[in-house]
Amino acid sequence: MNIEQLPRTVEMKRTKDGYRFVMIDQTKLPDELTYISTSDWHEVVTAIAILAVRGAPALGVAGAGALALWLFENAHDKEGRAWVSQVGLDEAASIIARARPTAVNLMWGTKRMHNAIEDALQQTYSKDQLCDVVFEFVKDMEAEDEAVNRALGAYGAELLKPQSRVLTHCNAGSLATVFYGTALGVIYAAAEQGKIERVYADETRPVGQGARLTAWELAQAGIPVTLECDNMAGALMQAGKIDAVIVGADRIARNGDTANKIGTYSLAVLARHHHIPFYIAAPTSTVDTSIATGAQIPIEQRSETEVLPHPLQGVDVYNPAFDVTPAELISAWITEKGVFKS
Amino acid sequence: MNIEQLPRTVEMKRTKDGYRFVMIDQTKLPDELTYISTSDWHEVVTAIAILAVRGAPALGVAGAGALALWLFENAHDKEGRAWVSQVGLDEAASIIARARPTAVNLMWGTKRMHNAIEDALQQTYSKDQLCDVVFEFVKDMEAEDEAVNRALGAYGAELLKPQSRVLTHCNAGSLATVFYGTALGVIYAAAEQGKIERVYADETRPVGQGARLTAWELAQAGIPVTLECDNMAGALMQAGKIDAVIVGADRIARNGDTANKIGTYSLAVLARHHHIPFYIAAPTSTVDTSIATGAQIPIEQRSETEVLPHPLQGVDVYNPAFDVTPAELISAWITEKGVFKS
Repeated sequence: MNIEQLPRTVEMKRTKDGYRFVMIDQTKLPDELTYISTSDWHEVVTAIAILAVRGAPALGVAGAGALALWLFENAHDKEGRAWVSQVGLDEAASIIARARPTAVNLMWGTKRMHNAIEDALQQTYSKDQLCDVVFEFVKDMEAEDEAVNRALGAYGAELLKPQSRVLTHCNAGSLATVFYGTALGVIYAAAEQGKIERVYADETRPVGQGARLTAWELAQAGIPVTLECDNMAGALMQAGKIDAVIVGADRIARNGDTANKIGTYSLAVLARHHHIPFYIAAPTSTVDTSIATGAQIPIEQRSETEVLPHPLQGVDVYNPAFDVTPAELISAWITEKGVFKS
Repeated sequence: MNIEQLPRTVEMKRTKDGYRFVMIDQTKLPDELTYISTSDWHEVVTAIAILAVRGAPALGVAGAGALALWLFENAHDKEGRAWVSQVGLDEAASIIARARPTAVNLMWGTKRMHNAIEDALQQTYSKDQLCDVVFEFVKDMEAEDEAVNRALGAYGAELLKPQSRVLTHCNAGSLATVFYGTALGVIYAAAEQGKIERVYADETRPVGQGARLTAWELAQAGIPVTLECDNMAGALMQAGKIDAVIVGADRIARNGDTANKIGTYSLAVLARHHHIPFYIAAPTSTVDTSIATGAQIPIEQRSETEVLPHPLQGVDVYNPAFDVTPAELISAWITEKGVFKS
């Protein structure tokens, strides 16, 4: 296995020419591993919107990184002290947080950075000192994300039996986080213990995060992986080839209802029918304590052309990016604070 | 609506230059409506293998048509009487029947033509008379297919309530038959009675028969249609947007277990979970009385490149073309002889 050599997905860097936020350009995978490296916060917003960077935990750090880039560009020394426009800061934070509507982590990461900047502005920092503090805050969030993923991975691995064949959907891997992954973090931790026989990856239409990202990432990590179309998951379960389903989450309501990539709900129903455990692996930052049930989670509707590149006259398209799995279909939520069973 | 103006999918034609079997080239849809017109039986076998012609009932007629073309090419007058090589006839029939393994109708249609040729060879026909008889036999099969589809459509329409929203998978439409369709035949018959509000068409990975064929066909017929990815069917049911699921069949065992396009089984489980009726629409020729249960139905495994056009090192692919839905998940089988409930 080669898990520790996986590339880092998002990373703030300080160079002699200034700060740069560096992201794997996931629209180019699996054909080539290339990076978007930018000092322009707008470019990060665009990268989020076009799914060059995606995955709830990675979006949290990307949101924070984008707002940090705004600050690096817009902070000035005024009467010997760092100063930024409050209106400009609030506006940038709002634009970043709304780049995609469903993953609560994007709002959470952006808000954390927003608060950190406001706290730092209360200090008598120079511009350079303020930038230092904000840079370190992003680096801390990156380190925290990795530590959280390793912790939840270790908890989740305990749930799996030796020779497990695990089905996953979309990409809740290292590529969805700073490093290591959530659902795939559980698989990596279990693989280190020799418990993983094979991972079955749904291709995850229409954007193909499973076909393009999960299959690539697992192959890079040296984990046996089989790719299948989304509609084949039921046949795999029927054939007795799946021991557990593990997926990530984009937002979890207080009652446990969980929004994740479209198709997750179908898998949960299929898993229940086949008496296969169905696990959500997600950091506690994915819980939105402001909402009671999944009915209140906004679901992003994406472009028809993702499903049908060449529109057909008379043909409508349905393309929600997420669905909501009710808590009663979820066997357990695997978090960095332990495993919560329903 | 424009149902009666849909193009015929397969058709044997007699021209002054001889016989031609004409098939819509479904690999070119929805971009262009073009036809394969051939006097070479090998070309029909190739068209079957590459899915230029597909759908269980259409395959039945295509198998018969292919063997008829073999006969038109290989029959001779010998001592004033039609003669063909028995070895050649048997070999051609065997090659045609095995062009695809799952749909029993291909074997059934080829076998019917094989028997018809052998019966005709018992008569004192000239070569021209033999060809006439065989040509008329194909034309009768074409007419019979349409009549069967219209009959099962009428029976199926009785099961639907006004303003029905029906989900379907793959293409069991006019394009899967000579004309009119099986699952879509039910929808056409119901639409003529004003009962169809909308059809939801699964795109049906990896070959996309829903996206390319069903969406196109329904739009041509003037039926409101929404295309969605296969993994969105559960979310549609959860949202209360589906009143019935109707699909076709490639082979039905004596106990009612039904093989159909991969993904059908998942839909049946989802429909059961949501208390939505799940119907199979198929002519009785789809029943294989030689097998007791679905476990005996051979499942065609197709090329990995259908799922993953550019192979990725370290990534395996699972690509069965069909799955088997157990009889207990099927609300009813709609046939030309009536509706059979489980």
